[in-house]
Amino acid sequence: MTTQFSQRISRLAPSPVREILQAASGRSITSLAGGLPAESTFPDFPGIQRHGWEQYGVSEGDRPLRIAVSRHLEERGLECPAERILILNGSQQGLDLAAKLFLDEGTSVLCESPTYVAALQVFRLFGAELHSLPMTPSGPQPEAISQALEHSQARLAYVIPNYQNPTGAVWSDAARRALAQACDQSGTVVLEDDPYGEIGFGDPLPAPVCSRLKAAPWMFLGSFSKSFVPGLRMGFLAASPELFAKLELLKQAADLHSNRLSQALVLADLQDPGRPARLDAVRAQYRERRDNFCQSLRRHFPQAQFQPPEGGLFFWARLSTSKDLRTIAPKAMQAGVAFLPGEHCFPQAPEPGWARLNFSHAAPEAADAALEVLARLML
Amino acid sequence: MTTQFSQRISRLAPSPVREILQAASGRSITSLAGGLPAESTFPDFPGIQRHGWEQYGVSEGDRPLRIAVSRHLEERGLECPAERILILNGSQQGLDLAAKLFLDEGTSVLCESPTYVAALQVFRLFGAELHSLPMTPSGPQPEAISQALEHSQARLAYVIPNYQNPTGAVWSDAARRALAQACDQSGTVVLEDDPYGEIGFGDPLPAPVCSRLKAAPWMFLGSFSKSFVPGLRMGFLAASPELFAKLELLKQAADLHSNRLSQALVLADLQDPGRPARLDAVRAQYRERRDNFCQSLRRHFPQAQFQPPEGGLFFWARLSTSKDLRTIAPKAMQAGVAFLPGEHCFPQAPEPGWARLNFSHAAPEAADAALEVLARLML
Repeated sequence: MTTQFSQRISRLAPSPVREILQAASGRSITSLAGGLPAESTFPDFPGIQRHGWEQYGVSEGDRPLRIAVSRHLEERGLECPAERILILNGSQQGLDLAAKLFLDEGTSVLCESPTYVAALQVFRLFGAELHSLPMTPSGPQPEAISQALEHSQARLAYVIPNYQNPTGAVWSDAARRALAQACDQSGTVVLEDDPYGEIGFGDPLPAPVCSRLKAAPWMFLGSFSKSFVPGLRMGFLAASPELFAKLELLKQAADLHSNRLSQALVLADLQDPGRPARLDAVRAQYRERRDNFCQSLRRHFPQAQFQPPEGGLFFWARLSTSKDLRTIAPKAMQAGVAFLPGEHCFPQAPEPGWARLNFSHAAPEAADAALEVLARLML
Repeated sequence: MTTQFSQRISRLAPSPVREILQAASGRSITSLAGGLPAESTFPDFPGIQRHGWEQYGVSEGDRPLRIAVSRHLEERGLECPAERILILNGSQQGLDLAAKLFLDEGTSVLCESPTYVAALQVFRLFGAELHSLPMTPSGPQPEAISQALEHSQARLAYVIPNYQNPTGAVWSDAARRALAQACDQSGTVVLEDDPYGEIGFGDPLPAPVCSRLKAAPWMFLGSFSKSFVPGLRMGFLAASPELFAKLELLKQAADLHSNRLSQALVLADLQDPGRPARLDAVRAQYRERRDNFCQSLRRHFPQAQFQPPEGGLFFWARLSTSKDLRTIAPKAMQAGVAFLPGEHCFPQAPEPGWARLNFSHAAPEAADAALEVLARLML
């Protein structure tokens, strides 16, 4: 089975400067090849250690961080050597690179229904023909998966198995196994997105889909925006061997490489022995917000259909069985409340009446007041 | 004249979350729309001030930095309000966004011949049909410009008028005027790249091409990699009104927004009263390196054809009138010297024997020794 890339990939060429410098790796050379400033021109940054982060770096990311991410992934159940870790400007960039690698106009992509809105934005931009994998609170039904793959003839399957955006669902072990088996059989590329894996309050998570694959090519996206700070724009991609070199070249063409000060700060956090305790405190705080939000939602929407999420940042609640919430959103804005009408999250025809509601940011009292406003508008 | 975008732009949709939050701008709202972490979860960064950079930001970049870049551009001869400044992960990202905005398979793009290798990489990836604008040491000949535009029917003209990469050429005032007039007439979009404008040792620069346009759409790219530090990956794009909103959406789809700690550090530098003196010192250092390199080049290659550059980071020298230097590069690597064979820099058929030689990074003694090695290999 050979992997089918997008047409543009036939025109993807390495940078000659990079090729030249890679041939040199490990040897002592004098380079007149790149356009490197002299280190002596770099100013001091009071309070920030000089790690050597000031100079241009390599497209794939700094090696110590890639090693740390590889170890970090192993703890999360996915084995991938540092050589196949790519450091990104936030995991959103992985969607752009994956789209460039696989999508031509009309390429079939299978997505959970509903799914992450900004992924839909990227896939549509690159011309994907979107197909739906219907969600339940434990992920898609295993038997629905092979059907959906067969029906869609998808080249790429995009999934968020941990605390899915927007539903909060955790895919069951059976659903993960079913997707892995079906993709192994059809050769469909798996794009697994896991921004919330470290923000869970429930049972331990089943192993990633990518860790179960035997033949299908795969990409796995992770983020430090929720477990550290979003403003540093740090995420990563891990990929199977046949994809990695091309993704690295696409990253190079996109922006040469990721910010190296952010890389140094994220590395320091990953190496910090206090990290697990810090994350425990984050999770405890979010669990409390989740519980408060849940009470407010039950109080103001006694009829709403929802499952309290076991992780992530969102409630997914059906506030109406018939109203298109896109008609409510402008009125809510007028009344000082913003929310995401669920209709935006569907790859194909939307189911009306769902809302994606963030519980991590607003203080409990403000969230409660906002839900009261929404309930009034829904009457 | 309506601007012709790439086909994918018909599928470019705004993020609904962003649309919702923009409607709120200036009003006090409670947002349940985005996926923002709670600020209370953000760790301390010893030595780094809390500017609020930890949280998610907006795609176009932080407003204070956009205002500072707008002022900075005015000093460089280009008027563009902060509202049309987009903060990038290095100016390379601007090439990716411009390609997404304008290139379909077969779209005609006019480039200087020779030009920046990584721009060729991006344009080819997106399927451009490349055309050549032949360079002289003062930019293209004015009369050649309208001919080249007419012959190529280019939708986009990509130019580097200040200390061009790789030639070091500064476009004459007449050449700039000629390109602006021709593009105004044909409606060709100007993509002006200016990473080296602040790294000059000669006469003041003529005004940018974009500042001379009356009708044609334009994008102008700037970088803080050479005037500050490359590891922060900070660049910017300024654009004409009909392009800006689409570029902002493309940035959003690419990676949500640029690193905000880098934005804060670049802003502090732009506001630093010591910046002009710091840049004077950088220029003095590079002028000295340029002079040393020039002497070494004359000594080891008495026959070579070149003009000492008035700025930027490179010498462009013809070391042979017949040899393809791509055959020399591997031998040079074996001997511990890396350089860029000029053949890689041509949009169409290469002229043999040119080399792009960086003079800013290697110490003078090392650069001299490297040129000696190269000269030996050329015998």
